[in-house]
Amino acid sequence: MQRIYLDNNATTMVDPKVKAAMEPFWCEKYGNPNSLHSFGMELRPFLTKALDQLYAGINADDDDDLIVNSCASEGNNTVLLGIYFDLIRHSNKNHIVTTRVEHPSMRSACHFLETLGVKVTYLSVNEHGVVSLDDVKEAVTNETALVSVMWANNETGMIFPVREIAQIAHEKGSLFHTDAVQAIGKVKVDVQAAEVDYLTFSGHKFHAPKGVGGLYIRNGVPKVRLIFGGEHMGGLRAGTVNAPLMIALGEAMELANSSLEYESTEVRRLKDKLEDALLKISDVLVVGDRNKRVPNTILASVRGVEGESMLWDLNKNGIAASTGSACASEDLEANPILTAIGADKELAHTAVRLSLSRFTTEAEINRAIEVLHQAIARLRDISISYTK
Amino acid sequence: MQRIYLDNNATTMVDPKVKAAMEPFWCEKYGNPNSLHSFGMELRPFLTKALDQLYAGINADDDDDLIVNSCASEGNNTVLLGIYFDLIRHSNKNHIVTTRVEHPSMRSACHFLETLGVKVTYLSVNEHGVVSLDDVKEAVTNETALVSVMWANNETGMIFPVREIAQIAHEKGSLFHTDAVQAIGKVKVDVQAAEVDYLTFSGHKFHAPKGVGGLYIRNGVPKVRLIFGGEHMGGLRAGTVNAPLMIALGEAMELANSSLEYESTEVRRLKDKLEDALLKISDVLVVGDRNKRVPNTILASVRGVEGESMLWDLNKNGIAASTGSACASEDLEANPILTAIGADKELAHTAVRLSLSRFTTEAEINRAIEVLHQAIARLRDISISYTK
Repeated sequence: MQRIYLDNNATTMVDPKVKAAMEPFWCEKYGNPNSLHSFGMELRPFLTKALDQLYAGINADDDDDLIVNSCASEGNNTVLLGIYFDLIRHSNKNHIVTTRVEHPSMRSACHFLETLGVKVTYLSVNEHGVVSLDDVKEAVTNETALVSVMWANNETGMIFPVREIAQIAHEKGSLFHTDAVQAIGKVKVDVQAAEVDYLTFSGHKFHAPKGVGGLYIRNGVPKVRLIFGGEHMGGLRAGTVNAPLMIALGEAMELANSSLEYESTEVRRLKDKLEDALLKISDVLVVGDRNKRVPNTILASVRGVEGESMLWDLNKNGIAASTGSACASEDLEANPILTAIGADKELAHTAVRLSLSRFTTEAEINRAIEVLHQAIARLRDISISYTK
Repeated sequence: MQRIYLDNNATTMVDPKVKAAMEPFWCEKYGNPNSLHSFGMELRPFLTKALDQLYAGINADDDDDLIVNSCASEGNNTVLLGIYFDLIRHSNKNHIVTTRVEHPSMRSACHFLETLGVKVTYLSVNEHGVVSLDDVKEAVTNETALVSVMWANNETGMIFPVREIAQIAHEKGSLFHTDAVQAIGKVKVDVQAAEVDYLTFSGHKFHAPKGVGGLYIRNGVPKVRLIFGGEHMGGLRAGTVNAPLMIALGEAMELANSSLEYESTEVRRLKDKLEDALLKISDVLVVGDRNKRVPNTILASVRGVEGESMLWDLNKNGIAASTGSACASEDLEANPILTAIGADKELAHTAVRLSLSRFTTEAEINRAIEVLHQAIARLRDISISYTK
């Protein structure tokens, strides 16, 4: 059976070009770049190139730091715990503002900081699926150490007004962090234009391997760190420099940026085709204005069909989708985004997320439309709650 | 020019069998194992196998935890910060006992904990290059939360009496952690026989890729964690499960264990041959009893020859060696181990570490002996301090 992967917000295929870029670094050029011999030193130009690709990819300034780490969960924890140790512990700023729809790594780390006495405000998204600027303005005070709001939501694809939120944070003397995991490779991410202080991203969401990510730290803000040790990454992240995956990350970043035009035209066109087909079915809604979303994501609610039942049916027919964040997909709770945008209790269990990539083909979308129609009809037929 | 890699304590070549084991997981089986579809679920048997290989590799009990993380620096920080948050903050146990010769990630994290008010005792090694049990007994009190002593030293290869130290710790109601980075693949590591509570290791020291490591947590001790987030790794380590590198780690662990016999015979024989040849040169000493070292490591001191000069000369002749820990090799400080075992100031700058692996050949050792002889003669000729 042909398999169709429409779960690219959970993780992506490694781009074959990225795989090829790593190839020499497993069994040939395998030295430790810190070593004073040719096996180590021969890696340095490759690592320099990778850093250049990463700095260019998010338009970081040469004086900023860009730490290569193991994942965005690490990056998010580094920012939160780092701000706690570097700032909150030593000042009267004991408050963090974030949202209810951040990645579990943000939410869990915030909950942990609460056990240490930090006050955290969790903003809800409004009926459009975004955080309202008025809510941010109301929440941020002179005691706010950090405002952290994601760039794009993993479940809905909604793009949040990060620049405006950064400006509100800065006006009150607060730092601003954004989890850009779902933005890189989908929309242009420019740390200077967006005025962010910290930004986290994860390679495996844009066709790099799992196990590598990045943390941007603007020059002049506290140099957060979580893993102490040697002088790697300017002393900000210990652990032997992971040359193969760092090189992969740089390559994937460059490919992601050079594909942005394709993403905003072709990927968007295929996504719109799928979305339009879904919306032709009665009692189907798609969350959020399509012009304010990243181009690849649909979060649909299909009245009368449990999200998990839909996933199983789609999977039996070769289609990979999700009910939301894969990081929480094993617990069968109500989708927090659908709850946040005010969906009733029944609808909150009907979410299905379809997320495309630049490797998704028109034939795959045509087949997905066919399977989705059949699945919805089949599952509504056996539903006890749904009546046409 | 033929290149010879004798810096396996810094990092190792990925075993081609390990590279092959990762191969399907970049561009074919690339799902997120938490996902409820075939792209995700098809990974689960591979991950189960990898965990089985890891548990078997260190003889962990089924009820123990074994967390796959990004490196031993992360593992060491997780233990130290985790013990701080879970135990030290909430009890009268405000003391850690460790050594002066731990990896920089241990030392830096300890220094950080000192800024939080934790008392840390750093034990020196004795003239044999190991920590004495009497020193441990004297240092550990009823207020000691954690004793942390490495299994084998990265620079000398000396094996520390971890079981006896664990027993001293436990008698005083303290927990015991060991950094086993330099032990796995070189000597048998059995967490139950050694009675350890926490153990860290790093894949790239035993022919797995960089960027993956493990943290063993015995059942019943505080469940330390550093990266908060989703329910991955039993909730103990957030971040999308890194299937390719976890599979690689399991495979490398199994290969390491099945190579232990070869390591203790053939690798030891080649190392002894090199060591014997060095010891025939006047004013060369090798640190530590060879019967109490891991089989692959020589830390030699060559009177009259600066360690860095030696490295450069060896490198020009194709041989990769080290002055000690690659994690600190860019700073030209006196070797801390040589200082610790009481070497005079001059000798403390003359350390050269040669570390073999199961891929080292007899021809390479013969060539290395030749080059070392020439290099020592050449550098002593131009030395202003050395007179025969």
